[in-house]
Amino acid sequence: MCTAATYRTKDFYFGRTLDYEFSYGEEITVTPRNYPFSFRYLPEKRKHYAIIGMAHVEEDYPLYYDAVNEKGLGMAGLNFVGNAVYGEVREGKENVAVFELIPYILSQCENAEEARELLGKIQITDTRFKEQLPNGRLHWIIADEKEAITVESGTEGLKIYENAPGVLTNNPPFPMQMFQLNNYMQLSSRQPENLFSDQLSLETYSRGMGALGLPGDLSSASRFVRVAFTKLHARSGEGEADSVGQFFHILGSVEQTRGCCELENGKYEITIYTSCCNATKGIYYYTTYTNRQITAVDMHREKLDGTELIRYPMLEEEQIRLQNA
Amino acid sequence: MCTAATYRTKDFYFGRTLDYEFSYGEEITVTPRNYPFSFRYLPEKRKHYAIIGMAHVEEDYPLYYDAVNEKGLGMAGLNFVGNAVYGEVREGKENVAVFELIPYILSQCENAEEARELLGKIQITDTRFKEQLPNGRLHWIIADEKEAITVESGTEGLKIYENAPGVLTNNPPFPMQMFQLNNYMQLSSRQPENLFSDQLSLETYSRGMGALGLPGDLSSASRFVRVAFTKLHARSGEGEADSVGQFFHILGSVEQTRGCCELENGKYEITIYTSCCNATKGIYYYTTYTNRQITAVDMHREKLDGTELIRYPMLEEEQIRLQNA
Amino acid sequence: MCTAATYRTKDFYFGRTLDYEFSYGEEITVTPRNYPFSFRYLPEKRKHYAIIGMAHVEEDYPLYYDAVNEKGLGMAGLNFVGNAVYGEVREGKENVAVFELIPYILSQCENAEEARELLGKIQITDTRFKEQLPNGRLHWIIADEKEAITVESGTEGLKIYENAPGVLTNNPPFPMQMFQLNNYMQLSSRQPENLFSDQLSLETYSRGMGALGLPGDLSSASRFVRVAFTKLHARSGEGEADSVGQFFHILGSVEQTRGCCELENGKYEITIYTSCCNATKGIYYYTTYTNRQITAVDMHREKLDGTELIRYPMLEEEQIRLQNA
Amino acid sequence: MCTAATYRTKDFYFGRTLDYEFSYGEEITVTPRNYPFSFRYLPEKRKHYAIIGMAHVEEDYPLYYDAVNEKGLGMAGLNFVGNAVYGEVREGKENVAVFELIPYILSQCENAEEARELLGKIQITDTRFKEQLPNGRLHWIIADEKEAITVESGTEGLKIYENAPGVLTNNPPFPMQMFQLNNYMQLSSRQPENLFSDQLSLETYSRGMGALGLPGDLSSASRFVRVAFTKLHARSGEGEADSVGQFFHILGSVEQTRGCCELENGKYEITIYTSCCNATKGIYYYTTYTNRQITAVDMHREKLDGTELIRYPMLEEEQIRLQNA
Repeated sequence: MCTAATYRTKDFYFGRTLDYEFSYGEEITVTPRNYPFSFRYLPEKRKHYAIIGMAHVEEDYPLYYDAVNEKGLGMAGLNFVGNAVYGEVREGKENVAVFELIPYILSQCENAEEARELLGKIQITDTRFKEQLPNGRLHWIIADEKEAITVESGTEGLKIYENAPGVLTNNPPFPMQMFQLNNYMQLSSRQPENLFSDQLSLETYSRGMGALGLPGDLSSASRFVRVAFTKLHARSGEGEADSVGQFFHILGSVEQTRGCCELENGKYEITIYTSCCNATKGIYYYTTYTNRQITAVDMHREKLDGTELIRYPMLEEEQIRLQNA
Repeated sequence: MCTAATYRTKDFYFGRTLDYEFSYGEEITVTPRNYPFSFRYLPEKRKHYAIIGMAHVEEDYPLYYDAVNEKGLGMAGLNFVGNAVYGEVREGKENVAVFELIPYILSQCENAEEARELLGKIQITDTRFKEQLPNGRLHWIIADEKEAITVESGTEGLKIYENAPGVLTNNPPFPMQMFQLNNYMQLSSRQPENLFSDQLSLETYSRGMGALGLPGDLSSASRFVRVAFTKLHARSGEGEADSVGQFFHILGSVEQTRGCCELENGKYEITIYTSCCNATKGIYYYTTYTNRQITAVDMHREKLDGTELIRYPMLEEEQIRLQNA
Repeated sequence: MCTAATYRTKDFYFGRTLDYEFSYGEEITVTPRNYPFSFRYLPEKRKHYAIIGMAHVEEDYPLYYDAVNEKGLGMAGLNFVGNAVYGEVREGKENVAVFELIPYILSQCENAEEARELLGKIQITDTRFKEQLPNGRLHWIIADEKEAITVESGTEGLKIYENAPGVLTNNPPFPMQMFQLNNYMQLSSRQPENLFSDQLSLETYSRGMGALGLPGDLSSASRFVRVAFTKLHARSGEGEADSVGQFFHILGSVEQTRGCCELENGKYEITIYTSCCNATKGIYYYTTYTNRQITAVDMHREKLDGTELIRYPMLEEEQIRLQNA
Repeated sequence: MCTAATYRTKDFYFGRTLDYEFSYGEEITVTPRNYPFSFRYLPEKRKHYAIIGMAHVEEDYPLYYDAVNEKGLGMAGLNFVGNAVYGEVREGKENVAVFELIPYILSQCENAEEARELLGKIQITDTRFKEQLPNGRLHWIIADEKEAITVESGTEGLKIYENAPGVLTNNPPFPMQMFQLNNYMQLSSRQPENLFSDQLSLETYSRGMGALGLPGDLSSASRFVRVAFTKLHARSGEGEADSVGQFFHILGSVEQTRGCCELENGKYEITIYTSCCNATKGIYYYTTYTNRQITAVDMHREKLDGTELIRYPMLEEEQIRLQNA
């Protein structure tokens, strides 16, 4: 499954893990401002905000997993199997195929507030990019430096939720994820006090006991609590290296190690890649399961007024630096 | 606090995290075979196995935190505050100051079996390297490719325990850490079965639910369970990059993010460095909190018959690779 | 707060705990068939099923907390503060004041199926019995020997849920309570298997380890899981004493001991009474916090064709039997 | 397995649950002062303190499970399988067969302090009462109104521990049980504060959330924590009925319901009986799985200067009081 998070120091950072048992061949993809964005039920957009993010590019169309636009708005789609329900094409609505949703939002919204308004007019449809490419069942996090929202399309239609912790995983639906945080309110980054009994002299035999009770498994509900705790307590310097480094530490708390989540087919789910986008500056950082070094693609080093997608393959080979070479 | 682990693929890997609120200025340090190892109560060793590891070097003496020797034996000292008790100098014993213990073992033992025998003759003393340098309260993991042992010196003297999971953290004493694993025996890397009731149709709404109950906090007891689970389920390729990468994923499961463990002085404990030594080949890999890229020092690229310590500072600056430079 | 449960052996049993910091002076109350039941917005019922249950009787009106009728249908109201929302009087609906709901259902429904149908026509209103008596915020369990349902009136109107485990506590809403059971599916009444690692020889050092992870606190979510587990695993003889005794054991698993749940006013919530009604035979059994002995009131020993409420005070004095008197 | 607890109001109370899958036919048994107590390796005691407790009487000898003497000292033996090790007969020690231990202590010690001293001279042997009656593997709680101690005989000999919470269950050894309480120090009888994040508005959606994390299963380690929490928070009146009633509530928190702990042979462990002795007044109260009413045997209603055991069978039939008889 996956985990997304936001983080704010001097700049605004937005990223996610993609957890799965295999990769579809995703690439860091810049969509410049004049790439003609076609939509199934809506007019083509010939001028729009430039976008950078991770996408599987199919027939020259960027099927984005997560991305930010040049205005600093980020959006990511995460698995929501068993809960996501998309609708039929409906008149009076802006019908958007689910695979178009990230482009549709990021191409025209400057911030979460605008995204929220636009979403109010949208009907998400299950239209496929092509017949052989069934759409994933997804929900989304959309965030700018000021706020984050969660978007879920279920049996009761499209719902938009304020996302106060600025994190998202998968099932159950977002309101339940938020509700369960109540059960962890006593968790602290400081040592616990002895409230059990003043008749016992209990001791904090280790540092870090204030968060005893924090779940450590890889299920989506447990990752939600853990990444929320880690993100909300995270402290770092304001500089770029500090901020980016800290972001990867935050998502590191929910990373999936090969072997710990075995699927029915005997395969293992792993964190295929982790991304951290400086949404303010348009720099997409990532690591992969097999390459811990942070790699960066800076959208402003590309010609953003172009018409063609700009694509970089993920560098997946471990970059070990030999110090006594 | 800290966590140590072992891992075996084609080669044998041994490493640890060092978690603390500040660094003493440790360096990757190679002790060549003819460096004269002096001991307070025992004859100097002028010929011995070469050693590579992380050490704070004080007056040209390598105060090792963790190291392996050229025979593939690894040893690491981890905090054991409140439980470690060292003895007085005793006749009839080989009196070894606690700061000499790693050099004393690694300079002469080829494997864990030899270390175990040697430890039977040893008395660990609290003698300080110098007056202003109080000894840490430690316990140790010693491991070769075949087995791992834990060494604890407490009120009842020196105890040596078989360490079946091949991991170590801090308090409580090792037998208690092992005992508590019983409470987690039902945790699995596969999905759980519904044993709650056949009258309810419960569902696995997320992957990874088999390990629900695994603790996720940073206390030493919880890290012990989590790293044991992660290590024992870890699967990777046999190649060097795969093995080393997987090792860092294993220790990543117990990494400490700045902000999540606040100390009384307002400082934060973090994972200062993580090491992974290919004990078979004598290559010391490490990452630091601020530098995710793996850096390596290969002892066999040094003149191992020398007499002088060879030291490399930790590279702590984030090495970000710009892909569209 | 409170907990309700159902249990089936030869007969059908239905009961609940009432947990609170003080009592309103409730009595075991039999409403005979010809007691004229008045309703605020609906015609008086002069002939109806006889009912037995616990009620606070106000101005000769039985404000039932839990009751069963002579057809074997049981119904109990439990606190649902923060979630219960009652409506306004609405035309085209059978408007029922919340305090009338138990009488309205039990006076005319033979089973849960009929209750479900009737509820489809009902609008629950917040009309007070009298000005000084604000209504409790409640949700309900309705059950016969074949099925149990949960009824919740919230912001989205009246919802009826199949209640497969046959238990109810308080917050959060029933669908969330049911959902969280997924997180406990691996809990068993049998000893766990070692799924943690075949490289460790873990042991079941105590009986009863299969349910490790079952929550033991008194919050409504934890009581829901615990009573569900206990009820669904409960085994007893079919006889009346065995069945009734077992029922009190089931609800004993969520009993509140004075001191363990302290309120802001310094008072303590306790289990004021526990009831177990043999719904098949119309016998209302109860115990109180201060009287462990089971006391019974048998409705069929009363003249059920009467017109007057028949009331028995709760016997609250501990009945200790001196064996060597 | 079993659970023992102490409780102090005006008087001192001492009791236990006996959890097992079948009963050996135990009886409430008074040993008067002049009953000749024979011991295998020590002189017969012809004058001693009178004792009341639960015993299996074999060949006119009271094999006590739990008892108090007329001085107000209580003692109970609880299963300690896998850890209890008894010794060989040793010269220079007062050799006491394990089945004689409760009589030996209670017949001559006025308080826990005296018991502690006496235990310093004792060697517990595995001598059987008769060949066909293997001794249980036990450890003990001994308590007076001032203090409680735990006695364990293991591979390292007899150990006596201060028992601050005044409770005992079974495995693991007492020091580990006490140590694990550290992991629950943050549990409270009051509502938790939000320490998770001041950026989230978390709510206490139910009363009783301060003890979230308290284990609810029936394993001995979980029962230890739960009964300690319940006992240490328990509040009651000082009167006899209040105190006794509260005591049964305390042990009710760890009661075993039939069906929840299934053994390999398909049988179920249940709480066969629960006792609460007013140690100050010598009144033995008990309930059984099938009889919730409290039954009492008052030792001071017996001729305590007698020479014959006085025995009362457990009253196991449910005593239901019909209120409208």
